Amino acid sequence: MGDSPVTNLPLSDVLLRRHQRLREALASLGLDAFVVTPPANIRYLSNHIGSAGILVLTRTAAHLLVDFRYQESVRALQASDARCPDLRVWEVPASYEEALVGCLGEIGAAAVGFEASHVTVARHDWWLEAIATRGLNIALRPTQHVVENLRMVKDTAEIATLREAAARLDRVMPAILASIHAGVAERDVAAVIETALREAGYERPAFDTIVASGPNGALPHHRAGARTIEMGDLVVLDFGGFLDGYCCDLTRTVSVGAPSPEARRVYNAVLDAQAAAIAAVKPGVEASAVDAAARTLLAERGLGEAFGHGTGHGLGLDVHEDPRVGKPRVDSPSVALQPGMVVTIEPGAYLPGWGGVRIEDDVLVTDAGCEVLTRVPRALIAL
Amino acid sequence: MGDSPVTNLPLSDVLLRRHQRLREALASLGLDAFVVTPPANIRYLSNHIGSAGILVLTRTAAHLLVDFRYQESVRALQASDARCPDLRVWEVPASYEEALVGCLGEIGAAAVGFEASHVTVARHDWWLEAIATRGLNIALRPTQHVVENLRMVKDTAEIATLREAAARLDRVMPAILASIHAGVAERDVAAVIETALREAGYERPAFDTIVASGPNGALPHHRAGARTIEMGDLVVLDFGGFLDGYCCDLTRTVSVGAPSPEARRVYNAVLDAQAAAIAAVKPGVEASAVDAAARTLLAERGLGEAFGHGTGHGLGLDVHEDPRVGKPRVDSPSVALQPGMVVTIEPGAYLPGWGGVRIEDDVLVTDAGCEVLTRVPRALIAL
Repeated sequence: MGDSPVTNLPLSDVLLRRHQRLREALASLGLDAFVVTPPANIRYLSNHIGSAGILVLTRTAAHLLVDFRYQESVRALQASDARCPDLRVWEVPASYEEALVGCLGEIGAAAVGFEASHVTVARHDWWLEAIATRGLNIALRPTQHVVENLRMVKDTAEIATLREAAARLDRVMPAILASIHAGVAERDVAAVIETALREAGYERPAFDTIVASGPNGALPHHRAGARTIEMGDLVVLDFGGFLDGYCCDLTRTVSVGAPSPEARRVYNAVLDAQAAAIAAVKPGVEASAVDAAARTLLAERGLGEAFGHGTGHGLGLDVHEDPRVGKPRVDSPSVALQPGMVVTIEPGAYLPGWGGVRIEDDVLVTDAGCEVLTRVPRALIAL
Repeated sequence: MGDSPVTNLPLSDVLLRRHQRLREALASLGLDAFVVTPPANIRYLSNHIGSAGILVLTRTAAHLLVDFRYQESVRALQASDARCPDLRVWEVPASYEEALVGCLGEIGAAAVGFEASHVTVARHDWWLEAIATRGLNIALRPTQHVVENLRMVKDTAEIATLREAAARLDRVMPAILASIHAGVAERDVAAVIETALREAGYERPAFDTIVASGPNGALPHHRAGARTIEMGDLVVLDFGGFLDGYCCDLTRTVSVGAPSPEARRVYNAVLDAQAAAIAAVKPGVEASAVDAAARTLLAERGLGEAFGHGTGHGLGLDVHEDPRVGKPRVDSPSVALQPGMVVTIEPGAYLPGWGGVRIEDDVLVTDAGCEVLTRVPRALIAL
């Protein structure tokens, strides 16, 4: 059974449509070339999978700069149905920065867009210096959210993969629930979760698994530590898998033993907040309005102060991507939802010293409203 | 058994020494404040552990900007022996960028260094804009490798942790070796490795586990996929754990069944290249000379073309950090080794279509030469 790096990648014609959409964006920005550096954006546009590489898209071609490590996989990719159209591969002998400027010079690019949210000041300075040293006439123009805006709306194959990734979470729940009891350490539960994810066919966990028990549940950033779960704890479980390049992301909070009245009250408030947010998801609605729906409900239940993070985030090749489902922010304005967007809806309540509750599902925006992709039941489970 | 976020963090006086060294660097750069953004640098200077946060170090104080999610853990930190000295905590209500510029204005900073290799062009532009809008008189000055240079040379507590993290890899080997046989999928071996890491007490894997079998061994970037291991395969296993914040990183290549003469030849060449590189590790030697030692030996064995990556990298809070053990590069000059540096030594040979071999150990530079921290035997094992 082969494990080709090109399994389940979108076919050439899907990539070509993405290139066409990007080229329309470039034309409207007056750019004749666009430099792509984040691995997920490169994968989206070329099917090249790797932690390194630079893609340069021009009006007529795609140029992929990769080092020694990826020559073999790019060769296999280009021999497959998932090949990147109009691709020229450049082997990077040492420095990606030198190779990029050499490539831009050789193809005669003049107005070159780059992704200002992904390129560091040092890297940009180095590009400018190399352009000056070579006496090239290249203007580097900062852009933001160009590829990310394309990625926000998923195409058919992406939706199918995201639906499968989310649905498959059902299979991991029984082993997880069986592993939780008084006396087990958080990190042992995390190990069970990650093994169950792999057994369900995910390539790997999509992010660091969170198992936050008892008072640790009040720390939204907590991962999984040595703390032993105790009778009466609420335990926040936040995990997901990576399937054919796409992420799923689920949070459930369970009770070890019968939940206290306070635990039940907080749980129900978060559950109702999540339902309110999901009910708000439909095309044309601002993502910030979905956030407000959850926030308003928690405030009504006296838990406004206990909910300090955003309600959700886009989900796709990255576990956190656009659109952000949160309050509008000066550096990141709200986005109106469109069919094909996939977002998490994950309100929570965090009470220092006591614990926390978070409930998270993955939701696809449809023409009519939304489809919840994750199907794991949401009622409070007492173990 | 509590799981405090402050367990095993360096004590206050260690942080103070780090601040003093950083303040000396700031004085020599003519800076009165320094903005730190990467999580590992923030942890190194403040003991704050989180994926978000900004630290501003001035000549007399440290300012930590954190959002809602971290208020509770920072409070616990500051109540412990590992508290960050002279710390003022700023709660970030919404945008880190606004909060930073507000903080810089309030403390009256004028010449402010930032980490050009970690700050994106978009973020830098936003800071400049906010400074201009508020009419502040702040000059942002790009710097590189300032905190990284401090982090390269480990202090006593760091060395103890790195030694323990590396030594503990012995415990995970038996389960891993027992799991490898013809018919098992790479990803199932990866699951065994990650479970064994957690059972050995690591908080989590330090990076995505690599299990590259047969021809996949020729892809240095390969992770672990659906391919079933076959009799006669070489299997490259590259994994490590995260212990009290520090990483270890080990690669072994094993043979399933008796190795072919060619497998033995390539293995021995890589093993000898590694030995040559380790023998070259001592204070005062350029990291690039260590790389050259491995490279020369592989070239002598006709495998020069088969070794396309660097020989190693620094290891610490990040799994890849300074110094780079590779060829000198225009954007990253070579560094002379100093006692207290910890680097990986991991030459390899990759033969497209056939497979690959890589052998990696973690090495501490000592006053006299070096100490290999990883103790897993290196002889070729046939399973």
